[in-house]
Amino acid sequence: MPSSYPPDCYDIVIVGAGPVGLMLSTSLARWGYKIKHIDNRAQPTATGRADGIQPRSLDLLRNMGLKRAVMAHDPARVYEVAFWDPGANGIMRTGTWASCPAFIDARYPFTTLLHQGHIERVFLEDMKKNGVEVQRPWTITGFENEGKGTYPVRVEIQHVDGGARETVRAKYLFGGEGAKSFIRDQLGIAVRHKDPIAYVWGVMDGVVRTDFPDIKMKCTIHSDAGSIMVIPREDNMVRLYIQIASSSDPDFNPRKTATEGEVMAAAKKILAPYTISWDRVEWFSVYPIGQGIADRYTLDERVFIGGDACHTHSPKAGQGMNTAFLDAANLAWKLHHVESGLSPRSVLSTYESERRHIATELLAFDAKYAALFSARLPSVSEVSAAQSSSSAAEENAFVKTFKESCAFTSGYGVAYMPNVYNHSPAHGAQHLLFLTGTGTPLVPGRILPPATVTRVVDANAVHLEHEIPLTGSFRIFIFAGALSPPTQKALSDLAASLARPRSFLARFRKPARDGHHEKFTPHSPFFSFALVFAAPRSKIEIRERVPGLLAAYRDTVYADDVSDPRVPGAAAAAHAKMGFGGQEGGVVVVRPDGIL
Amino acid sequence: MPSSYPPDCYDIVIVGAGPVGLMLSTSLARWGYKIKHIDNRAQPTATGRADGIQPRSLDLLRNMGLKRAVMAHDPARVYEVAFWDPGANGIMRTGTWASCPAFIDARYPFTTLLHQGHIERVFLEDMKKNGVEVQRPWTITGFENEGKGTYPVRVEIQHVDGGARETVRAKYLFGGEGAKSFIRDQLGIAVRHKDPIAYVWGVMDGVVRTDFPDIKMKCTIHSDAGSIMVIPREDNMVRLYIQIASSSDPDFNPRKTATEGEVMAAAKKILAPYTISWDRVEWFSVYPIGQGIADRYTLDERVFIGGDACHTHSPKAGQGMNTAFLDAANLAWKLHHVESGLSPRSVLSTYESERRHIATELLAFDAKYAALFSARLPSVSEVSAAQSSSSAAEENAFVKTFKESCAFTSGYGVAYMPNVYNHSPAHGAQHLLFLTGTGTPLVPGRILPPATVTRVVDANAVHLEHEIPLTGSFRIFIFAGALSPPTQKALSDLAASLARPRSFLARFRKPARDGHHEKFTPHSPFFSFALVFAAPRSKIEIRERVPGLLAAYRDTVYADDVSDPRVPGAAAAAHAKMGFGGQEGGVVVVRPDGIL
Repeated sequence: MPSSYPPDCYDIVIVGAGPVGLMLSTSLARWGYKIKHIDNRAQPTATGRADGIQPRSLDLLRNMGLKRAVMAHDPARVYEVAFWDPGANGIMRTGTWASCPAFIDARYPFTTLLHQGHIERVFLEDMKKNGVEVQRPWTITGFENEGKGTYPVRVEIQHVDGGARETVRAKYLFGGEGAKSFIRDQLGIAVRHKDPIAYVWGVMDGVVRTDFPDIKMKCTIHSDAGSIMVIPREDNMVRLYIQIASSSDPDFNPRKTATEGEVMAAAKKILAPYTISWDRVEWFSVYPIGQGIADRYTLDERVFIGGDACHTHSPKAGQGMNTAFLDAANLAWKLHHVESGLSPRSVLSTYESERRHIATELLAFDAKYAALFSARLPSVSEVSAAQSSSSAAEENAFVKTFKESCAFTSGYGVAYMPNVYNHSPAHGAQHLLFLTGTGTPLVPGRILPPATVTRVVDANAVHLEHEIPLTGSFRIFIFAGALSPPTQKALSDLAASLARPRSFLARFRKPARDGHHEKFTPHSPFFSFALVFAAPRSKIEIRERVPGLLAAYRDTVYADDVSDPRVPGAAAAAHAKMGFGGQEGGVVVVRPDGIL
Repeated sequence: MPSSYPPDCYDIVIVGAGPVGLMLSTSLARWGYKIKHIDNRAQPTATGRADGIQPRSLDLLRNMGLKRAVMAHDPARVYEVAFWDPGANGIMRTGTWASCPAFIDARYPFTTLLHQGHIERVFLEDMKKNGVEVQRPWTITGFENEGKGTYPVRVEIQHVDGGARETVRAKYLFGGEGAKSFIRDQLGIAVRHKDPIAYVWGVMDGVVRTDFPDIKMKCTIHSDAGSIMVIPREDNMVRLYIQIASSSDPDFNPRKTATEGEVMAAAKKILAPYTISWDRVEWFSVYPIGQGIADRYTLDERVFIGGDACHTHSPKAGQGMNTAFLDAANLAWKLHHVESGLSPRSVLSTYESERRHIATELLAFDAKYAALFSARLPSVSEVSAAQSSSSAAEENAFVKTFKESCAFTSGYGVAYMPNVYNHSPAHGAQHLLFLTGTGTPLVPGRILPPATVTRVVDANAVHLEHEIPLTGSFRIFIFAGALSPPTQKALSDLAASLARPRSFLARFRKPARDGHHEKFTPHSPFFSFALVFAAPRSKIEIRERVPGLLAAYRDTVYADDVSDPRVPGAAAAAHAKMGFGGQEGGVVVVRPDGIL
């Protein structure tokens, strides 16, 4: 970690300032890295484009302290989806269901909808605070990993008008340029098409007048005149997605287009017997899209790609931007750990293995989702069954698919496979005390469940899962159990062990680069500790209960004294949700990206 | 309501841009009034001054859509108060308790702490959106209610440097100039001193280093070296209040002062055995304060005073700014209703009768509070009793006082007496169907209880009590009961009755002045309707269930289908909280300020 850099040398060059590039840049900028970030657009997105933030992504934004800036735009919130089918006199509603049903333990059980421009600006302003601004409109013209030196990657960039040029050197190059990635193409990485069906979509954001009763709901409408998806939005807008052509059509032309007027006329026909007209149209676009997944996300673990450069699919489930966020969140901390000397370079292989696995699942889901909604629509009775939890419902294939889909689309169904980070019985490190696979509800590769606890120092009710911000550190939650002599003994032993010269903590006792997170990382930028006692806040005297080195984490000591309807009757709800009894506890290690 | 104004004529001249003036100006500006607002300070408050927003005030800010802007400053939140007493080796904690305990049904059960400058700016920016800016530094030099014409009040103002002068005319003049009100003095309104004891207080905001464990809690500390109050604040600051002198001291001098260094030295002594030092001091002030209450709040219902001009007291319970907010919120809609032709001028008398009653209670409370905390400190056992709800605790005078105080200081204990707005068996209007005094939990003069419901049009979980914003309209909540033929019949009858030419609604069918609230006031600026059905959202088809004229309120139709731990087992929790069974309902009329 050099504190000064040779001229024109950077830790990373990031190409593209869409969701994946911005998330990566924002994270690394916070941790003190030197970044060259370019984008070939002269301005950030003004309006339109992606618009759906899924519950899991909102968790991530909250953890980064960016949720409030997003919510300041008063986005629409989608809690339920309505289904409309052809009826005797035009369309009729056949049912509604929750977009993030109660069986998913989500902190924010809704989709947040606002245009990508608002979202981009939240990141751009945070980056600016950390000294990073996007150089526009600049594009990449060439690059090479020369394989030697501190900054092995040479990158050629130029102004899009062909004038100014720069050659810079970097440790890493990241391509977040979207589906038409120059970097991916230069690397010769092939894109495979999973679902052979391609589509042309029309999308229109605007303010409408209508007597359609569900205009403020997310709706999938299937009529004899075609299909449409309705998505409520900020500022009283509504987005309509309309399928213009499908490669399953006999006369499919991927260059088929449609005018605003044609899309409006189609929407009017589909929505009959209801009427619709537009006060204004804010954004309109027609674009062909097919499913695709890149064979590789990196060839040399120096040049990476992510987001739409790696995976494309239909816009139906609103997954593009969310998957891009999580691609970048996954890569950021691994680069940080390698560059900071915590981890060997080999950990970087887990970026592709984890994220490509998710993209593969996403494409499989996307194809299934398209089939479910285009080929056959659910009946009212199926929808009702899906909302209940009766055992009969469990047997229904559609209901099962629906449940799986909700978990996946909300982001909570995502599970990484076992690897160096995600423990399993096959992991190289084993110990009698490791609980993986022993019936604990915590599954490595999945997100930490949410839990509300009371912070001891100020008696605030807080979200435990958001308490340690995105510092790039592992989050070590010590569920200490009840206040008792055995607990005190165990904590003292743990504190003494951590203080030993050869402890993992002692080996990485270096100051954080950024200096903003001392409260969470007083000993090491790589490890944060939180202590949760199964006791009322007023009984927890930090000076007496938190021994030795752990006393430095006084701001992250919590009382597990808030009841939770998901574990009714549990005296210590957070302990219970983690699978610990109230008297005894255990340690939960969470990756820097919130994954167990 | 003239749409144009003669030169130099205003609806109201507001003097003083502290909490009371800003709340009044913000409300009236939203409703389209022409305002001349002056303040004798060259700039808004930069830092310091008042800092505590009580739960009830946060409700009001939320209802005005201003809460998010306040929370953007990351204020401290106080959930509990800690008490420290003299011990064998310096101070020791004797207990803690909730500042807004669970027995109070508060949406936001905490005090929000940030300096007055942040709060003022939230109002100033909202006023600016509605075309009102404060003219600074200008002061009032004279005024007279000449008793005739549309603009009977003549007001003389001038720049504080003595140069520029203006004479303006207004329908109303409001004095929100603080304790040294020129307007109050000119009117010859006397200030009575309830508690004969006066104090000199020192107050210091800063960033400290300390090993005092409760530095992030609100604390009342009583030591052999004196007393101090600790208040956590935004930006890692802490406020200390320290009593410098009391008129009960033998050598009391109300002009006694103290330097920063003297206050710091006193704090160090009081906090022993803990240590404290200051990284920086942001604000420091020493000021004498006694209890006082103005005899009248207006003499002619043309010239009004409010806030500190009407009532002064110790800063201990953080009530000054909150009482000021509620003074202004009370006056604003009454002025609006008189000027809009809804109400006779006589309603303006309720401003003084309601708000002076609260100020009287506040001063009585303040004297009791001072006695409780200065004269004798609670023991550990008393504090524990206060936290439980055992019947033994009910017998303890201290516990009773504590409970009453929490309700009062949080703002939920405030109750206006019966009058033209607050129904009682003595009210002029009586009907067999009026439920006041028949065992309903809803008490006229108190705030509507909070209730979470599902909005039908978009399936969002929302706070019913905040759904109709501060439009100046009465809020008529129709709890419609279950979906049943009798319900449908009752709703149809109600809708038909409202549509009759002589209905109260038909008599006041005029457009709102501001044009922003059509969704809430499609028929009249004075009445908003909300319908709450005791049924799951998916069963409520607005077209079928909301008849006639009520259909215009489709955006404020709700499903009472969210469970509430305060009414366990209730199928329709909002109905239950209002005292209605799930099958049958009733109508709840709420004043524009949220009071029943």
